[in-house]
Amino acid sequence: MASHTMKAVNYVGPHKVKVEEVSKPKIEHPDDIIVKVTTAAICGSDLHMYEGRTAAEPGITFGHENMGIVEELGEGVTLLQKGDRVVMPFNVADGRCRNCEEGKTAFCTGVNPGFAGGAYGYVAMGPYRGGQAQYIRIPYADFNALKLPPGKEHEADFILLADIFPTGWHGVEISGFQPGESIAVFGAGPVGLMAAYSAVLRGASNVFVVDRVPERLAAAKKINAIPIDFSKGDAVEQIIKANGGEVDRSVDAVGYQAVGSGGNKEEPNIVLENMIKVTRACGGLGIPGLYVPSDPGAPDSAAAKGMISLSFGKLFEKGLKLATGQCNVKSYNRYLRDLIIAGRAKPSFVVSHEIGIEDAEVAYEKFDKRIDGYTKVLIHPNGGF
Amino acid sequence: MASHTMKAVNYVGPHKVKVEEVSKPKIEHPDDIIVKVTTAAICGSDLHMYEGRTAAEPGITFGHENMGIVEELGEGVTLLQKGDRVVMPFNVADGRCRNCEEGKTAFCTGVNPGFAGGAYGYVAMGPYRGGQAQYIRIPYADFNALKLPPGKEHEADFILLADIFPTGWHGVEISGFQPGESIAVFGAGPVGLMAAYSAVLRGASNVFVVDRVPERLAAAKKINAIPIDFSKGDAVEQIIKANGGEVDRSVDAVGYQAVGSGGNKEEPNIVLENMIKVTRACGGLGIPGLYVPSDPGAPDSAAAKGMISLSFGKLFEKGLKLATGQCNVKSYNRYLRDLIIAGRAKPSFVVSHEIGIEDAEVAYEKFDKRIDGYTKVLIHPNGGF
Amino acid sequence: MASHTMKAVNYVGPHKVKVEEVSKPKIEHPDDIIVKVTTAAICGSDLHMYEGRTAAEPGITFGHENMGIVEELGEGVTLLQKGDRVVMPFNVADGRCRNCEEGKTAFCTGVNPGFAGGAYGYVAMGPYRGGQAQYIRIPYADFNALKLPPGKEHEADFILLADIFPTGWHGVEISGFQPGESIAVFGAGPVGLMAAYSAVLRGASNVFVVDRVPERLAAAKKINAIPIDFSKGDAVEQIIKANGGEVDRSVDAVGYQAVGSGGNKEEPNIVLENMIKVTRACGGLGIPGLYVPSDPGAPDSAAAKGMISLSFGKLFEKGLKLATGQCNVKSYNRYLRDLIIAGRAKPSFVVSHEIGIEDAEVAYEKFDKRIDGYTKVLIHPNGGF
Amino acid sequence: MASHTMKAVNYVGPHKVKVEEVSKPKIEHPDDIIVKVTTAAICGSDLHMYEGRTAAEPGITFGHENMGIVEELGEGVTLLQKGDRVVMPFNVADGRCRNCEEGKTAFCTGVNPGFAGGAYGYVAMGPYRGGQAQYIRIPYADFNALKLPPGKEHEADFILLADIFPTGWHGVEISGFQPGESIAVFGAGPVGLMAAYSAVLRGASNVFVVDRVPERLAAAKKINAIPIDFSKGDAVEQIIKANGGEVDRSVDAVGYQAVGSGGNKEEPNIVLENMIKVTRACGGLGIPGLYVPSDPGAPDSAAAKGMISLSFGKLFEKGLKLATGQCNVKSYNRYLRDLIIAGRAKPSFVVSHEIGIEDAEVAYEKFDKRIDGYTKVLIHPNGGF
Repeated sequence: MASHTMKAVNYVGPHKVKVEEVSKPKIEHPDDIIVKVTTAAICGSDLHMYEGRTAAEPGITFGHENMGIVEELGEGVTLLQKGDRVVMPFNVADGRCRNCEEGKTAFCTGVNPGFAGGAYGYVAMGPYRGGQAQYIRIPYADFNALKLPPGKEHEADFILLADIFPTGWHGVEISGFQPGESIAVFGAGPVGLMAAYSAVLRGASNVFVVDRVPERLAAAKKINAIPIDFSKGDAVEQIIKANGGEVDRSVDAVGYQAVGSGGNKEEPNIVLENMIKVTRACGGLGIPGLYVPSDPGAPDSAAAKGMISLSFGKLFEKGLKLATGQCNVKSYNRYLRDLIIAGRAKPSFVVSHEIGIEDAEVAYEKFDKRIDGYTKVLIHPNGGF
Repeated sequence: MASHTMKAVNYVGPHKVKVEEVSKPKIEHPDDIIVKVTTAAICGSDLHMYEGRTAAEPGITFGHENMGIVEELGEGVTLLQKGDRVVMPFNVADGRCRNCEEGKTAFCTGVNPGFAGGAYGYVAMGPYRGGQAQYIRIPYADFNALKLPPGKEHEADFILLADIFPTGWHGVEISGFQPGESIAVFGAGPVGLMAAYSAVLRGASNVFVVDRVPERLAAAKKINAIPIDFSKGDAVEQIIKANGGEVDRSVDAVGYQAVGSGGNKEEPNIVLENMIKVTRACGGLGIPGLYVPSDPGAPDSAAAKGMISLSFGKLFEKGLKLATGQCNVKSYNRYLRDLIIAGRAKPSFVVSHEIGIEDAEVAYEKFDKRIDGYTKVLIHPNGGF
Repeated sequence: MASHTMKAVNYVGPHKVKVEEVSKPKIEHPDDIIVKVTTAAICGSDLHMYEGRTAAEPGITFGHENMGIVEELGEGVTLLQKGDRVVMPFNVADGRCRNCEEGKTAFCTGVNPGFAGGAYGYVAMGPYRGGQAQYIRIPYADFNALKLPPGKEHEADFILLADIFPTGWHGVEISGFQPGESIAVFGAGPVGLMAAYSAVLRGASNVFVVDRVPERLAAAKKINAIPIDFSKGDAVEQIIKANGGEVDRSVDAVGYQAVGSGGNKEEPNIVLENMIKVTRACGGLGIPGLYVPSDPGAPDSAAAKGMISLSFGKLFEKGLKLATGQCNVKSYNRYLRDLIIAGRAKPSFVVSHEIGIEDAEVAYEKFDKRIDGYTKVLIHPNGGF
Repeated sequence: MASHTMKAVNYVGPHKVKVEEVSKPKIEHPDDIIVKVTTAAICGSDLHMYEGRTAAEPGITFGHENMGIVEELGEGVTLLQKGDRVVMPFNVADGRCRNCEEGKTAFCTGVNPGFAGGAYGYVAMGPYRGGQAQYIRIPYADFNALKLPPGKEHEADFILLADIFPTGWHGVEISGFQPGESIAVFGAGPVGLMAAYSAVLRGASNVFVVDRVPERLAAAKKINAIPIDFSKGDAVEQIIKANGGEVDRSVDAVGYQAVGSGGNKEEPNIVLENMIKVTRACGGLGIPGLYVPSDPGAPDSAAAKGMISLSFGKLFEKGLKLATGQCNVKSYNRYLRDLIIAGRAKPSFVVSHEIGIEDAEVAYEKFDKRIDGYTKVLIHPNGGF
């Protein structure tokens, strides 16, 4: 007899998650499906909640990077079938509002009342439980679920289609990048590496990646990007020297918690200022890195209100363009999937650990402390990998 | 016998220009031409120099909005002929550097050593004398001069092709505007009115124009835009109410000398902040209004260095795009000329005065003081109009 | 007690429709709605079926241009409410296939098995009954129905959002048109007039409209286009002379049943050949006019198989671009609606007749014979207008 | 004392070129330069003249793919210096006409009276002698010459920037290609291979290359494309099977002399027909392959007039886009140069032979007969390689 409960990674309080037994999700709307999760990744943004810096309440199930097998379908679903292997964008989108129509699924107005955009398992992003659990309910499933080839192949690559591979690609895209151009990516965490990898795949000439963590810089080098260690000297000067001039495009894969070269002090505008300096006149800045309208933990009162001070006169003098915002995963995931299947892309090089759900508590702790090489963790909540 | 001198409007010192007798320009490069000026307009940006707020030195001849008749040609010129009627972009561009090749003529790297961009009669924009004079030398003339139909028709419309009509159009273009969308233009000076007029011509639905000067708001209304008086209430709230929601695009036709609703105090970020508020998620901000990297007269030390504080968290949350920079006049002037010839556009509605060169001193004074309705003045240095 | 039947315009056989009493439509899928039709237009393409030149079988209810009031909603519908006034694109689209995701709703793969694209009331376009009836079922209603302001205002304008206004606009769009350019539209039927009107709204300089019917040419003139009568001389020569050279863009609003200037003989390639001649090097050809893969009534055996002979060498020499296909109505209808509401567009100038459903039989007959000025007929199946 | 003559490869008559001593070119216009040719490539299109199928007259010097060292400069040249290493697009362009301004340098209206477009050493393309000679005159040199790093490195790669690398890239570009998409390239001659290579560089998923020559198919395989031998079965069926459906884009790198699978009979529409079949609805066709308005040697009278019969009904039904024309080399060469310098691209894999000018006669003969592996021949007219 089928169980009505399942295991899920729940938030308990600051620096504490727990694997709990909770009720299995049910079809709530005719266009829903239930997916049996084969893989759910932990994202750096989960740590914001984990660390207690958000309004997340105990009991929330984490997980916005999810894939698995279709288990049950609502009667309105027309394109999917039981048994299909699918990966979902982190964005929940209804596919029927104006923004979805226009491909802006990160800004869906139909899934999170009063706000443009929804996500699974994230505070303030709507009533959608996360996928770090054995099952997950997917609303508007025909629209949100991307079909994958059956089997278990490429599991560690495909899971990255939920968020970080498209998000890195998006950073490159909104910078206005064209093949043959040079580009500088700030930050070599998983998203920064995906941005650099995307630029390489799309035919960039020189790709620079700025960080100060040796392992990250080494990973950048492995994908044929040029590592720039900002603890060893001014990043802008290093890039301009190596490139023989300013770059055409730059990407911010750091966001509002940027730190200066001196140490660990947050300087929220440091990455943006460097981008203005390092990008040539007529170039473009792509900003997928998160900036928030309100940040109680900010280093000063302006930053706490989401205000950032920029060299706007310089930006204008150079005629720069700047684009921001969460990634519309659906704009890219189909194409990135095909690159994986064709053997052109293998983004799983960023994955550091694959675990069962029972090890999630330890994984969060180590990932949060950046120890034992925890950089990108995949959870397999139903085992089998 | 031909005279070797001519009359020119020269800068003498703060709040003082003088019509002086100077030597006529000569061909200096095979691709030069000499144009006998029929019309040169005074631009609001000339007042920056006039007021002594720049490093402009005495003796500089003003005038970057120029048209006239080809008088003499260098031996390298292939497309123009003596007697052709031409209008020149305010940008001086060489047509052979990378930026020119790619249509970014406002950022030409070949005409002003060490800087991307040149102009006639403007401090720090290269060694090009202005056209508020009887003759002017035009470098790279085949590239820079746009041919007009012979005669005198549309003179007051065509002169606006040198700067403000394309600049207003550019603001709309770089906002990402598509026909059918709504748009808010901040500032109803000549450039703001041209931006609003461009939006109307290009098929905008609702076009809002924000200012507080009754004459400007009345002019906006005449071209079927919706005037918003920010001295009568919050501009953002007024627009959202009238539009039934946020607008798709917004244009900054004010720049760094923006003032708040309260009075005359400069608030350099007030227009940008309002644009972030009034533009819908996924929309775009076009910023042709000038921001400078260094402004000794700024209200605070940050602004003096060209730093502006923005609600970047909000900008990101809405996924906005933002584009800046001087107008690449050549990208548009040919098409705007054709709209004038076809009778679709008649931008001369912004012209307030047409004068001979001998009245230039008075005109500068009145325009600077904004008295007697001086808003857009055309000088005819060789008479005849 | 509510009736279970309604009146509908049904095809009976060649040159014969009949208003019959049929069963009212029902919700068949959770995302369906039932709309009480306030207006349904007769389209020129309905005549293909009416004349018996298609495989349409007796009993089919015509009508792919429909609007009305939401009467009943399936339980999956989330954005619409009973009483909403809505207009539907002629395309039926599921909003969840790849093509819909990418805005190509005319090529939906989820509504008409084995074919990319569906429509209401049209042979081979899927099992969707037409709206020339008192009620119509709308599948995937949140996606397909565009909300309108309540009331009866602009009814004759809004109904044109279902097909011909967006289709004309689409022709201009896929020609690659940019504001300020010149354009030639071939055909001044309702779609051709809408294309010309769109070009005017979007800031074209010269807009030429080619036809030989005096009433149509007069209508073109009224919207500030330049009429070209091809029975009075070669259309290409007339346009080049009037424009002072070739045009930037051209639109085919005629399709495969084009006739030569000599008389009524079909010359399927005549419009395309003229477009290749009249469009300047680097220009673009937009082809919304219908070409079919199989046409038993064609003038020769090649045309019967949908083969057209083109001056491809000339096309190549000029570096022309050419784009084809049915209109993705949803890409435009929201914006065109807003132009109507803002008072910028009033496309109803093409409407010739408004009738009750009881007059549909006569209207088809007269429209087919092009007598009594029948050019665009609106049916109000539930009266009230 | 400097010689006033030089060696040049001149056309003598059908199937005959001769290395002759001719006068060295001189500066004729202030914007000219004289380049000492280090490398000039023989292009497949040179064979059209060589075979006597064009109106080329004896005495014409061949060669439109040229690079070398700046030897002499006209007084109007501002960006180049003596000693600069440069490569020239095959297009001669003035950089000052409307088409050049808009990046359409293949359609320059200022260099070849009565025609849009000019080239070096080619019949009907203007009075520009070819570069298969020791020296060549370059008009509008600042605009036309692309600077290269000094030295001899990458010579065999850089020479391909004159024509075939950008032309292959252009084919991909005008097909509307986006990274992640699949693409089919028809023809695996040098341009076809460059198109496939470009698609790989730009992030295509599956890249198919259709030919029947084993060596060409092997070359395609080496660059990670999927070879399709059309002599082994229907190309369209093979591609659809291997791709799991139609491709997103297709490129015609064959042109009007296409032959069917059966043998050597020319079927001018066979490639285009296959592209219509193999490209998915909403996809795009890029056509850099040459089609001519007049071809006396065509297989039938329609083709002789440049007429091609197409399945236009099918094209329309699929909503396909199609773009044609010679490559605007300047739109791409700077970026492709940077890819070569960065080590990302190494297009010289297509080069089969490097010779001195004295071997040009034999090389033409063997290349024309397709013997001894002659596929892409580089001439070094001044030795040294």
